[in-house]
Amino acid sequence: MTNTNLKLDEINSLVTKVLVKYGCNMENASAVADVIESAEAAGCHSHGLMRLPGYVATLKSGKVNGKACPTVENLAPAVIKVNGHNGFAPYALQQGRSHLIKSTRKCGIGVMSLVGIHHFAALWTEVEPIANEGLVAFACTSYKPAVIPAGGTKALYGTNPIAFGWPRKSHPPMVFDQASSVMARGEVMLAAREEHALPDGVGVDVDGKPTNDPNEVLKGALLAFGGHKGSSIAMMVELLAGGLIGESFSFEAAVRDNADGGPPQGGELMIAIDPNLLGDADNWSDHSEKLFEKITEQEGARLPSDRRHKNRIESLKSGVMVANILLDKIRVL
Amino acid sequence: MTNTNLKLDEINSLVTKVLVKYGCNMENASAVADVIESAEAAGCHSHGLMRLPGYVATLKSGKVNGKACPTVENLAPAVIKVNGHNGFAPYALQQGRSHLIKSTRKCGIGVMSLVGIHHFAALWTEVEPIANEGLVAFACTSYKPAVIPAGGTKALYGTNPIAFGWPRKSHPPMVFDQASSVMARGEVMLAAREEHALPDGVGVDVDGKPTNDPNEVLKGALLAFGGHKGSSIAMMVELLAGGLIGESFSFEAAVRDNADGGPPQGGELMIAIDPNLLGDADNWSDHSEKLFEKITEQEGARLPSDRRHKNRIESLKSGVMVANILLDKIRVL
Repeated sequence: MTNTNLKLDEINSLVTKVLVKYGCNMENASAVADVIESAEAAGCHSHGLMRLPGYVATLKSGKVNGKACPTVENLAPAVIKVNGHNGFAPYALQQGRSHLIKSTRKCGIGVMSLVGIHHFAALWTEVEPIANEGLVAFACTSYKPAVIPAGGTKALYGTNPIAFGWPRKSHPPMVFDQASSVMARGEVMLAAREEHALPDGVGVDVDGKPTNDPNEVLKGALLAFGGHKGSSIAMMVELLAGGLIGESFSFEAAVRDNADGGPPQGGELMIAIDPNLLGDADNWSDHSEKLFEKITEQEGARLPSDRRHKNRIESLKSGVMVANILLDKIRVL
Repeated sequence: MTNTNLKLDEINSLVTKVLVKYGCNMENASAVADVIESAEAAGCHSHGLMRLPGYVATLKSGKVNGKACPTVENLAPAVIKVNGHNGFAPYALQQGRSHLIKSTRKCGIGVMSLVGIHHFAALWTEVEPIANEGLVAFACTSYKPAVIPAGGTKALYGTNPIAFGWPRKSHPPMVFDQASSVMARGEVMLAAREEHALPDGVGVDVDGKPTNDPNEVLKGALLAFGGHKGSSIAMMVELLAGGLIGESFSFEAAVRDNADGGPPQGGELMIAIDPNLLGDADNWSDHSEKLFEKITEQEGARLPSDRRHKNRIESLKSGVMVANILLDKIRVL
């Protein structure tokens, strides 16, 4: 047998136990455990348990403060600033979220900047709780250089994901979360771990030559999706999650980072909008369902988060299959 | 000779004259003339004079009110709503802009919804004036179905451009503006007019078969850029510029439209952020220049708006070359 079946709460307590052992307090450990559990539940394994060794590495190297206590400020009526004080992102996000929601319900739109955080999770886990509160949510974050700017030759941008969540009255929110690279670094890491070749056009090796070997691409660079258009989006993310909020660009984060295998310190930006204050409070929800119907009535088309929702229902019932090779690694920790 | 050299103010007065002749008042005519002049000045001919016959067609058919007087409301501290009352977008945008800027400077972030407008211009002409005021700006708008949702078979989304503007202290703003399709419909129209074949992978004919003929693609459908990722962005634009603000989705706009060759009635969303209120007021501008340096120091890479800025400097000096075939069409009007 190469897999073990784990219940979601077993995953959560396993992660919490490991993180506490390596120096997290309960607040931080449990916030990270929740996002890892969410990822596994949704079948998003690239952001699940396989990230735990990276979290531990950053605690061991002393790069991240596992007992960090985030602080929240209101810089303007619609601006929330969270300083993670060098902790993991999930607890900082938890602490800022209610303030962002409150500002957004008052002003119609709100923005939250997060600085001094170490981000290693899937962004959809961050917009979904806001969409669950009935707000439209957007998030973006940068990382370390992995993507070549269009026309250029060297990795400069992070994989720089953006996520967007749309609240739905009788369904879980519609959420998409996509890297600005053709493929997410997490997926490339997964391919490397499972020894799968990558499709053409995903990345280049350290000399800038196209390759299908995920290990070579991890050392080299990824291409932006859709050529110069994805590259522009990656640049926008650098500006929003770095320049705008006083945090580092990917290339600066890399210089500061100790390369311990975990996430560098960086920034994140979230925007929320209250659809009830945009002029169509009575009808926006039903009206928007008509678009979703038009998409799903096309054979082969689907809503981006459908697969995650289905996986979640299944995982709640039957747990999650975790590769033993990964589980052994975690049990050693 | 197949081209005529026109000065920018000659273009502006030619457009104004034609629009007034077909029923615009001076406010509307001059707002449209300004965006057409900007497009020609920047070398963005697909959104320049070649759009004028479309503007005229909508005035002749009675679809658009050339004397529309937009109204502006403040729905929440950071929400501006502009109703174009069935006029062209440029005058509505002009009327709302100062209110959006004011709200944004107060709240830190602001959003402007535009409904009841007919949008036929390049989005960058709309984020640039806001970035010129020192604010970060985002805009998106839908159109009529032209793009297939990922995995599907039929055009559902508009070409749904997004534009992003970043203010710079010693340079014109960095602005990008990109359709969610592999190629903008305006570029396909330009290829059709100039009888150029399209590259592979841009679009399909009315039967869903790949084709390089721009006329067939205009009847058929375009593909989203970067596969499902561009498709998600096109969907986000439908939600933001339609569902969120009580305006039509592209498929609804098409049903209502009289197909006179001009733009349908639709919506637009703009977001602005004041970088001086996000926690790094003293340094965000200089800091962000470092990213732009890192991009442009790579051989072959450039900032998205560089070409437009260069064209603008040239056009101010030497005017613009306009194809006689187009000019003859306009002179008949």
